[in-house]
Parts: sequence; C-alpha cells; structure tokens
Amino acid sequence: MSSSFGTLFRVTTFGESHGHGVGAAVDGCPPGISLNETDIQPQLDRRRPAQSKLTTSREEADRVAILSGVDNGMTLGTPIALMVKNTDQRPGDYRQMRSIPRPSHADYTYQMKYGIQALSGGGRASARETIGRVAAGAIAEKFLSEQYGIDIIAWVNTVSTIEAPPVDMLNIGRNDVDQSAVRCPDASTAEKMIAAIENAKDAGDSLGGIITCVCRNVPAGLGEPVFDKAEAMLARAMLSIPATKGFEIGSGFAGARMRGSEHNDAFVKKGARLGTTTNNSGGVQGGISNGEPIIFRVAFKPPATISLPQKTVDFKGEDTVLEAKGRHDPCVVPRAVPIVESMAALVLVDLTLRQKIRANETIQ
Amino acid sequence: MSSSFGTLFRVTTFGESHGHGVGAAVDGCPPGISLNETDIQPQLDRRRPAQSKLTTSREEADRVAILSGVDNGMTLGTPIALMVKNTDQRPGDYRQMRSIPRPSHADYTYQMKYGIQALSGGGRASARETIGRVAAGAIAEKFLSEQYGIDIIAWVNTVSTIEAPPVDMLNIGRNDVDQSAVRCPDASTAEKMIAAIENAKDAGDSLGGIITCVCRNVPAGLGEPVFDKAEAMLARAMLSIPATKGFEIGSGFAGARMRGSEHNDAFVKKGARLGTTTNNSGGVQGGISNGEPIIFRVAFKPPATISLPQKTVDFKGEDTVLEAKGRHDPCVVPRAVPIVESMAALVLVDLTLRQKIRANETIQ
Amino acid sequence: MSSSFGTLFRVTTFGESHGHGVGAAVDGCPPGISLNETDIQPQLDRRRPAQSKLTTSREEADRVAILSGVDNGMTLGTPIALMVKNTDQRPGDYRQMRSIPRPSHADYTYQMKYGIQALSGGGRASARETIGRVAAGAIAEKFLSEQYGIDIIAWVNTVSTIEAPPVDMLNIGRNDVDQSAVRCPDASTAEKMIAAIENAKDAGDSLGGIITCVCRNVPAGLGEPVFDKAEAMLARAMLSIPATKGFEIGSGFAGARMRGSEHNDAFVKKGARLGTTTNNSGGVQGGISNGEPIIFRVAFKPPATISLPQKTVDFKGEDTVLEAKGRHDPCVVPRAVPIVESMAALVLVDLTLRQKIRANETIQ
Amino acid sequence: MSSSFGTLFRVTTFGESHGHGVGAAVDGCPPGISLNETDIQPQLDRRRPAQSKLTTSREEADRVAILSGVDNGMTLGTPIALMVKNTDQRPGDYRQMRSIPRPSHADYTYQMKYGIQALSGGGRASARETIGRVAAGAIAEKFLSEQYGIDIIAWVNTVSTIEAPPVDMLNIGRNDVDQSAVRCPDASTAEKMIAAIENAKDAGDSLGGIITCVCRNVPAGLGEPVFDKAEAMLARAMLSIPATKGFEIGSGFAGARMRGSEHNDAFVKKGARLGTTTNNSGGVQGGISNGEPIIFRVAFKPPATISLPQKTVDFKGEDTVLEAKGRHDPCVVPRAVPIVESMAALVLVDLTLRQKIRANETIQ
Repeated sequence: MSSSFGTLFRVTTFGESHGHGVGAAVDGCPPGISLNETDIQPQLDRRRPAQSKLTTSREEADRVAILSGVDNGMTLGTPIALMVKNTDQRPGDYRQMRSIPRPSHADYTYQMKYGIQALSGGGRASARETIGRVAAGAIAEKFLSEQYGIDIIAWVNTVSTIEAPPVDMLNIGRNDVDQSAVRCPDASTAEKMIAAIENAKDAGDSLGGIITCVCRNVPAGLGEPVFDKAEAMLARAMLSIPATKGFEIGSGFAGARMRGSEHNDAFVKKGARLGTTTNNSGGVQGGISNGEPIIFRVAFKPPATISLPQKTVDFKGEDTVLEAKGRHDPCVVPRAVPIVESMAALVLVDLTLRQKIRANETIQ
Repeated sequence: MSSSFGTLFRVTTFGESHGHGVGAAVDGCPPGISLNETDIQPQLDRRRPAQSKLTTSREEADRVAILSGVDNGMTLGTPIALMVKNTDQRPGDYRQMRSIPRPSHADYTYQMKYGIQALSGGGRASARETIGRVAAGAIAEKFLSEQYGIDIIAWVNTVSTIEAPPVDMLNIGRNDVDQSAVRCPDASTAEKMIAAIENAKDAGDSLGGIITCVCRNVPAGLGEPVFDKAEAMLARAMLSIPATKGFEIGSGFAGARMRGSEHNDAFVKKGARLGTTTNNSGGVQGGISNGEPIIFRVAFKPPATISLPQKTVDFKGEDTVLEAKGRHDPCVVPRAVPIVESMAALVLVDLTLRQKIRANETIQ
Repeated sequence: MSSSFGTLFRVTTFGESHGHGVGAAVDGCPPGISLNETDIQPQLDRRRPAQSKLTTSREEADRVAILSGVDNGMTLGTPIALMVKNTDQRPGDYRQMRSIPRPSHADYTYQMKYGIQALSGGGRASARETIGRVAAGAIAEKFLSEQYGIDIIAWVNTVSTIEAPPVDMLNIGRNDVDQSAVRCPDASTAEKMIAAIENAKDAGDSLGGIITCVCRNVPAGLGEPVFDKAEAMLARAMLSIPATKGFEIGSGFAGARMRGSEHNDAFVKKGARLGTTTNNSGGVQGGISNGEPIIFRVAFKPPATISLPQKTVDFKGEDTVLEAKGRHDPCVVPRAVPIVESMAALVLVDLTLRQKIRANETIQ
Repeated sequence: MSSSFGTLFRVTTFGESHGHGVGAAVDGCPPGISLNETDIQPQLDRRRPAQSKLTTSREEADRVAILSGVDNGMTLGTPIALMVKNTDQRPGDYRQMRSIPRPSHADYTYQMKYGIQALSGGGRASARETIGRVAAGAIAEKFLSEQYGIDIIAWVNTVSTIEAPPVDMLNIGRNDVDQSAVRCPDASTAEKMIAAIENAKDAGDSLGGIITCVCRNVPAGLGEPVFDKAEAMLARAMLSIPATKGFEIGSGFAGARMRGSEHNDAFVKKGARLGTTTNNSGGVQGGISNGEPIIFRVAFKPPATISLPQKTVDFKGEDTVLEAKGRHDPCVVPRAVPIVESMAALVLVDLTLRQKIRANETIQ
C-alpha cells in the first residue's frame, strides 16, 4: 500500500521502468470536472526524457491515455485510470549492475528488502514511476485551479553552486520558467547552469540542485492539526520524490538562526481577510494555511548513476570497479520541476477535500 | 483522523493544553513486551516543562498512567491507553489573545479552519499535545531496542547562530546529551547556548535552533518504495512537530551542491554485510535503509509567543499592539530533543512491522 | 489498528474488561456541535449491566467523562477522548478459565493469535469494549439528528424461537422499545421473551436473538461505490459486535427466494423526491442510500459462557468438564440494542462526511 | 478511495462497463511468488459472460494482461497492474434508461450522489467491475494455497426456492462445483435450478439465490480484535458484491434460535492442535480463526434489470413503463461463485499478512 498517496483524493501508481508501462489510478476525484488527455499531457511533456540535451537520451513520447472514470469529457467521480506505455526499454544496459549494486542507488536496498533482484533499470525506484504522479497531479491542478484559482509554480533555484537571484514570487509563471531548458527563470543564471550541466555530462559526472515552489491563492484553513499539518504532508510528498535530500518551508533552516521578534509575521488587513507583512511562515501557521503564498524548497542530490569509474564492491563483497551504462540525467532538477508541482497539487487537493467536510452546507 | 500516526503501530493522541489532560491510544503494539510506567516516564521527564531555567515555568509533573493494554507488566497486543493529567492550567493568561491572533502562531488559522475559538493556550497546536507522542514513542523505542538493538539519539546542534562542532555519531549517548540543560553534548558550546537563551528570555524574545538525530543498528530493508520511503515518513513526522521549518537527511541541502562522483557512497564489505565508506545517503537509498546509521536534522523556528510588544491587528483587522502573557519557552530545542527521538521511533517501529510481512517465516 | 473504525469520523476504542477502564478517542468530529456528558450517558445506561434481572449482575455505573475535544460545551473539531472507569472487576472468577478455553468463546483464539494469556474476563473480546462504541455513537447520533434529522431505532425482534409481530417502522421510537426490559416493543411478545430468558438463566443456559434496526430520514446519496457500499459498511459494523452471526438488509435471505418482478421497488413521486412503493432494497441501491428507511437485521448467538457443565478439553488437550463462573448475560440482545444503534450511527456519520466532499459549496 | 480494499494486500479496481476496460492495481503482494496470466485466467473464465445459456449474451473473452509488478514470472513485491479490455460494449442499449431510473438498480442513487449521469451500463455499479476483484483474488488464492495450503470453495446452494442437500464440506472441490453450468454440486438439484433459470429468462424475469463458501486449512489466529474481526471483514467483502442482501457465518440466523448448551462447540484434541466437535462458530471465535473450516453464506437478490414491463416513474417523477433492454443475467449466482471465492481470498490474504507481524522471527 506504499504506492498510494492521499486520504480523499487517492492516487495509486504502478509500473516499472522496463515493463509494459506506467500509470496511476486516481480514486476520489470529484465528479463533473471537464477532463481529457490534453489537460494532462503538457506536464508529462515537461517531465519526459529527451526533451533537451540536458536530459537522458531515452526516447519516450509518454502519451497518456485515460482508461476509465471520464465520460463525454467529464469526470464521473469514479476511479480514473491513467496509462503511459514504455517504448524504448533497453534492459540489456543494466546487465553489469545486476551483480554490482550502484553506489547510492536503490539496487542494494531493494535486494535487502525483497530478497529478489529488482527489475533492471531501477524498477519502482526509477524516476519513470513519477509519470503516474505527474498525470494524477495534472488532474489535481485542474480541480484546484478551476474551483479555487490556486496555481502552483516551481522552478530551479540552484544547480550545483550556481544560485539564481530572488524571483517575483507573486507573478512568476510557467512561461517564465520554461524560457530555458534548465527551468531557471533568470536568463543569465540559466546559461551558467546549462553550461555546468553539459560539462558534468561530458565528464561522466552529475550535479545536484534545489527547486523552489510557490502555491498561490490557497485559501486559509487547509491542513489538519497534529500529524497531517500542511507542511508535514508537503515534506512527505517531496521526500518521496527520488533523489531528494531536504525540504524547508518559509524561513526554513535559516529561520532557526533568527529571533522571534524578527521572525514573527505581523498581521495586517488585506482587503476582507487578514494577511501578514512578511512570510517567514511560508503560508502555514500551526500546520494550517493562512492565505499567504505557500513557499517551500526541495534539495536534490546529484544522480547516483554516473559513467565515471567507481571503486566499490559487488553483491558478494568483492572489490570491483563499476562503469555504469544506461541513459541517465546528469542533473534531475530541470525535469523534477513538474514533479514537485504535481506532488504539491496532490497534497493541496487532498487537504482541500478534507476541509470541505467542515463547510457549512449540508448535503442536498 | 489527523491525530493518528502509523500504519501498523498506530498512535492516536488526544487532549488540549488547558483541558483535563493529554494522552494517546497505541494500537498495534506487539504482545509480550515487558512494559510499565517506568519505561515511559524518563522521556516524559526530558520533555516536561520547568525542568530548567531555560524552559517555561509551567509546573507539570507529567506523570503517565497506563490505562489498558498491559497485564502483569506485559503488553497484550491490544490498544495501550496512556494518560497524563493537566494540573497547572491558567487559561486566564490567554484572555487578550482571544481577540488578537498571535503573529506566527496558530490562533488565526485555527479560527479560519474551524470557525470556533480554539481552547485557550493553543488547544491541539500546543506543545503539550506532544506528550502523547513521547509516551507512545517510549514504547516504540523499547520494542526497537529489545528486538533489534536499535538506538536513537538526538541532540541540539545549533541555537540561533551558535553551532556545535561535529560529534562522534557512532558513540554519542543520552548521557552525553543531558550533561547540559540545553542538550548540546559539547560543553563549551552548551554554555554559550545557555547564555544566549537566557539573554533572549530576559529580553522577552525567543531563539530558534537545529536538532540532529542519529538512529543506529537499523537493519537494512526498512522503508517502503514510492510514497512511504523512510525519509518521506521521517520528514512528515518531523514537520508535524510544532515550530519546525525544515528537514534534511544525510548530505541534505549541502548535498545539492556536490557532484555525483563525490556524493556517491561507495560500498565496502563490513563483516557479513555490505556497508558504505561515506554516508551522504544518511542511511537510506531509494527510500530504504541500507544498514548504515540514519542521520537527519530538523530546523525549529524561534517560538512565536514573545513578551516583547508586537504591532499587529486583531481578528477584526484593527491595529493593535500585542504583549503576550502566559508562560512560554524562549527556545524549544532543549525540550524538543525527546520529541524528535520519539517521532523517529514511531516511524521506525512502523516500518519494522511493515517489513516483517516479508519475513520468510510463515505463521505458527 | 484494528481498534479503529471510520474514515473521516474515526473512533479508536481502548480498555479491557478487568483493567482500569474503557473508552474511546473520536477523531474527526466536526466543530461547533453542542456536547456534554448528558448527551452520551442515556445510551450507556441502556447498555450497562445490572439494569434488570435479565442481565449480568456485574454492578457498573458506567459514568462517562469527556476528557478533551470539548470546550464550553462545544466540540472543537479536535479529538474527543471519552473514559468510563471499571469499578466491579472480579478477575478471580476467571481463574479456572485460564487453563480451560471456554467453548465458543475467544479464549482459545486469542491465545493462538497473541501467544499470551489474554486478560481475565475476555480482554478486548469482552462486551465491555463496546462502551467506547456506544459513547462515540451517541456523539455521532447527535450530529446526525441535528444536521439531518436522521434517527436510528433498534429493537429486539426475536429471542430464541419467540418472534415479534411486524412493527410500524415509520413511527416506532425508543420509548416504545424501552417499555419492556427485553426491548421488544410488542408487550405480549416481550412477556414471553422475558420468561424464556429467566428460564434459561435459571437453567444455567443462554439464548440467542435477532435485532431489527431502522434508520429514518437518511438523505439519498450516502454510501460509496464498490467496497464502501452502505450495506457493506453496515455489515462490517454489525459483525464486529461480539456474538453476531448474521446480517441482512431489506429483503435479506428471503429476497433470494423472490423473482425480480416482485422484488423490484418501483419508483413513485414522494413530494420533491423520488421514493419507492416497496422497500425490499432496505433503503440502499447499488450501495448508496435512496432516501427510503434503511432497514437491517442482526443475528446474535446464545452467549458462550454458561454455568451448565460442558465436556471439553483444556489448553493441553486433556479431557475436562468446565463449569463457568463469572457474571454473564443469559441473552445479549436487550443490551445489544444501543450497540447496534451506535454502530449504525458510526457508519452513517462517516458516510455523511464523505458525501459532504461532493457538496457544491466551496470552502469559505 | 472507496475502490480500494485491504490493509496490507491492497487492491484498487478501476474501469467501467462501457469504457476502455477494467482492471486492478494490487499493492502489497509479497515478492518471490511465481505468477503469470495463466494463474489468473481460470477464475476470470468462470466469471465471464456468455459462458452458458444461463448468463448474459454479452461476448467478452476477458483476457487478462499483467502490466507491471512481475518480472521473469516472479512477483517483485511492487504493485501488480492488471487489465482486461472491453470489446462488446453497446451503450446504445441503455438510452431509455438515461431518463428512467431502473427500479432497484443504482441509476437513481448514482445520480443523487454524483449529480451526473453515470456511464451507460451501470458504470462502477456494473458487475463488470468485479473483474478486477477476481483477477486480484486469483493472486491472493495462489499465495494462500502455496504458503498455507488454504483452499476456498464456493457453490450455489439455492436458486429461488430450490435448495441443494448438504454437501461434504471437507472434500468438495471446484470440479464438483463446475459439473453443471449453474455451479450446484448436486446433479439433480442443478437440473431443476437450470430449468428454473431458463424459465425465468424466457419470462423476462429474474431469480435470486444463495451461495455457500468454505475456506479450509486456515491457520488459527487470523482476524483482528474489535473492528477487523474475520467475520466483519468477510461480511463487508461479501456485501460489497453487487446484488447481495445478506451474510451469515456458521450457525448464522438459525443460531439465534439455539440455546448456548447446544450451540457451543466443545473443544477436542485434533492431532497437535485443539479442534471442535461441531462448527456452529463457522471457524471463527471472537473474530479470530480457530483452525476449523470457515463457512459462510451469501444471499443474492434477483437481478434488477428485467425485460418485463415495469410501472415506475422517470427522473422527473412522471409515470412511465420501463421495458429494459441490454443483455443481462437472469440469475447472478452461477457467475458470482468465483467472485465470492475471490473476495474471501482477499480477506484472508490480508489477515494472513497482518498476523505475520506477530510471528516470532525478526527481520533478516
């Protein structure tokens, strides 16, 4: 059951990197939402491999098909099954790795967990699993946008040691983000990032990076006390994305160095509602959204699969040198942008539906 | 249902800061574990208020009573109910705050969520809720220690801008941590931290900090693929603790600045198992423990309730100045150490039981 | 986690027959409902032992205390903890049964499951566990009644082979039911039932019975397709009550003998809504309520604990004769009436909240 | 989330009667079980339409494809996605029913629940949804059989008023059941049942029936106390099957008429374990299996869709006469036999995995 996410808008992903395909079943999507494949495809296109020279060369069109749950272009309220076929598998590439666990990859831990060789190419640990999340997230985003005007924008803030200057959180859009292949909205920083990634790729090495995400127009009241706080759900969602190592919201780790008198976000009147003058809280207080933008950052490590030779041991403990083959991203953050957005959407749609229980209106 | 945590070892906490008491129901604890109140009290004592001049002066003995689930000092496998009575409530202290939401506290968001004034003193957003977690976590720790030899040690790494030097992760114990009231194992750093907290308290202000935690002797194979990765569960657990703003595992945010060739943890033979030379992974790969220590850090913001006057607005949007009364911690990290340990224990016990499903042994 | 029930209105019960007490934590109750102990006590009084000569002589006042989740007589939306103390335990009565598993009781199966002697008196298999359900159910009933005008009435339809004539399902009330100690609304049948139970008690034997329950004013649309159909949830709820052996809804087992042309409930106009001329469906079609009364029946076996000598074997397999001591009900159905009502309320409140997600109103 | 079943072996079904296809995602199946499509197809063949003149004439081969979770004929421990394509949809048949809700069908209640016209042909309320259950159940059966020797046999006990004589519960097999198209193991009763169904079909009418099911070699200890008792889980599972109206275990409703002294199942020594002389308990005591066969019965109503004209009203409340078209079963029980078996298997596999948590063996 670890492949399911969400309490009321519940997504179950399935499929392996080198099996027939990958997909998701979405249970709990409200009825009466207009939906077809063209609502979902754009985010899959932003996630798909081979979209630029910065990404793996594996050629997958990643065309989504809606198998159920939609009739005449409207959701029925019943489970929506989504499927993307795999077309360019090359399991042969992984032969050497069957006997040598890749350092910092999941080969060893899957073996220890299941006692069976996971499918070549990473199995469920493959980034390909995230297709189901992105497809489901696109549905969530459509609901959030149409019902509440919520929008969710993520971008690459850092690649290796190259960091972008602050962006205008209130106005940045996906067009700004997609102006460069690396998905950093600052043009000159983007150029440097692209060069760094290309250099690392040529060197057979890989780079990490940081993604920032803002969720705007989130109504106050989302998030559940105690264990299902909004930031707790977001942290779980983000740390469930492959290759992530950290999450921070609002002031984050820097906030730990501040004094209460400078960190506290004073309330002010903003039209009909209360707002805050600063946003160190990152849009959540006590685990519940306060109406200000939700802002968080996610750290991604450099991909584990590199072609540089690595001294390590095989499954039997014998010394060896691994030179990994296969087609891999030298840096995952450009393609991870829609994944971060999708997981944020899955968190927010679930919290939104959970809060509806408290709406005043009774049934009928 | 947001007050429950865990899939197989399931904890439900209840109670408010100024109600009759707080507690937890633990459902799913295996039978046959020796247990009585003295197994639980020590961690509650480390969490309780008024334990030093660094903490709130609210006087609570926080004596735990086991109400059910244990017979003749042994767990029965049935739900264990745990209760701690409140004795030193002073709801009157909170009168002003009923009309003025404290900046960066949960007063405003609870009102927006529930449409009802939360109980004075923070209600479920109060740190007092964590008593149930610590009591349940102590049971989880006992099971993990007896069955697997797992131990979990957290300590204060940073208070404000004061940072401790690296500690010996393999050997640090709770005795080392508890040598100072601030729970930083480095004596000279601890002194500086204590002075800083006292100064902040005197100034009516508050400080943030960072806690580091290590979980040792964790068997390989814990953590579930995709959404219930070990790091995802830990991130959720930690961000569900009041006042947290960030989580990172292993290399964390710093890892995002590294190259794959330096970040990858090469495998080596360690006795009968494989281990790694470095531990940038923080003990998890692909969401599953690899047998190395699990290491993570949690950022806490400075407490929102300060006695310095704050310019803000009341619930109606009228300008006002808030001077908070009530008894509050100037810095939460010393008391948060056992909370971090407890939440880590709740994550690990659940993942341990989930992995038992895959053990070879059949029933009987 | 098997002591929790419900998805959105989630009840966790705890406690043993001969421990400190029993209770429940209710997570997910909406805020703003007026609530105090007097709303809960009446159903506990109908459930409590020693209420008449038909029931066990164990003397328990079963006074409920609300420990949390309610402030100034209003629910806060946070977990409501409920507690009833045990006062008249006599664990000594059960000494013999520690070595001899009572036929058709849970002694043997608990031993096989947990590998530990369950607490004397049945532990979690004791009917005393149902106190938590009844207390939680009373809260659910209050919500259902105030928000939707739903009422739930159960009564004893059959004791042993004595069956009551049909009752007026649309008008029967709890006053009618409680006119006799056996809770059968037909006075002359009630007399016969009482005599039969007294005879069985004098003979050291026990009797079974059947309870009928009607839920009125249930809005159409409750129940979730596929696995969480209203009748599936009710069936699970009822078969989770100790001593139950069967559940049927609407036409039930008799419906299996009918033809479609006689079984189908034709639609007619009933005011603003559609209704049906007959109600073989029992108020649900395709798992979802249709606005007609929900009607179901629950079969209870004769209690396993009897004082007549029984030839059986002890835990070691040695032949023996068991003459059970302890204080036991000769027939559980009179006291099971409020338990059936409470479990029905817990099912309906959960389905009601789940359906609210589909209400048109958006948040705020 | 109402399309998911199970705690540890979790099945999510998807698809509609007249969409692209139907299927299931199985999350939590243990790794290392040999599995391919031929393990699943036989039960689907027993469930499929047009298998005899007793069933609907809709022509569907119902060939299953495993899309993920299996590599080289072995389960990986990751989600198994299963898909069956629809080929013989005729949505046009349902045109009239879009304006007239079929009596005792789900047309009206789905409309009331979702506020949108469900897909023609019943949508998720269609019996076609059960394909996903049967496919998943076949995997569960394989695990239960290989690991524990558990087998599960269901058969038709009653059609309309025609009832089969008692069968040999300990020895009956699927071959015995499948000797007749009606799946009643008694040849002469089967003939009468077949004649009755053919007559009803010719008359445009439909018949109900009762299925009995026995689960053998179930180890003692399965089932969780309180809400997840084995009989509670079975009752929910069975009442989630379309057209069911009742469930009873062991003595069932007849048990309510017995005295304790005759109903109690005395213990005897059976080899190394304790067994019982009678089995009124139906294999469960206190919600937990006792090692005796689990025996239960399920009542099915006559199908709602009949071609006889029915006086009813349309969605607007106007009087009308419905003459249903479409291809429908005159009696569902012959095809429901594998569905009952599959749902029993899904319950038992989940309880088995949950009990493994209590096995003595530690991880590794």
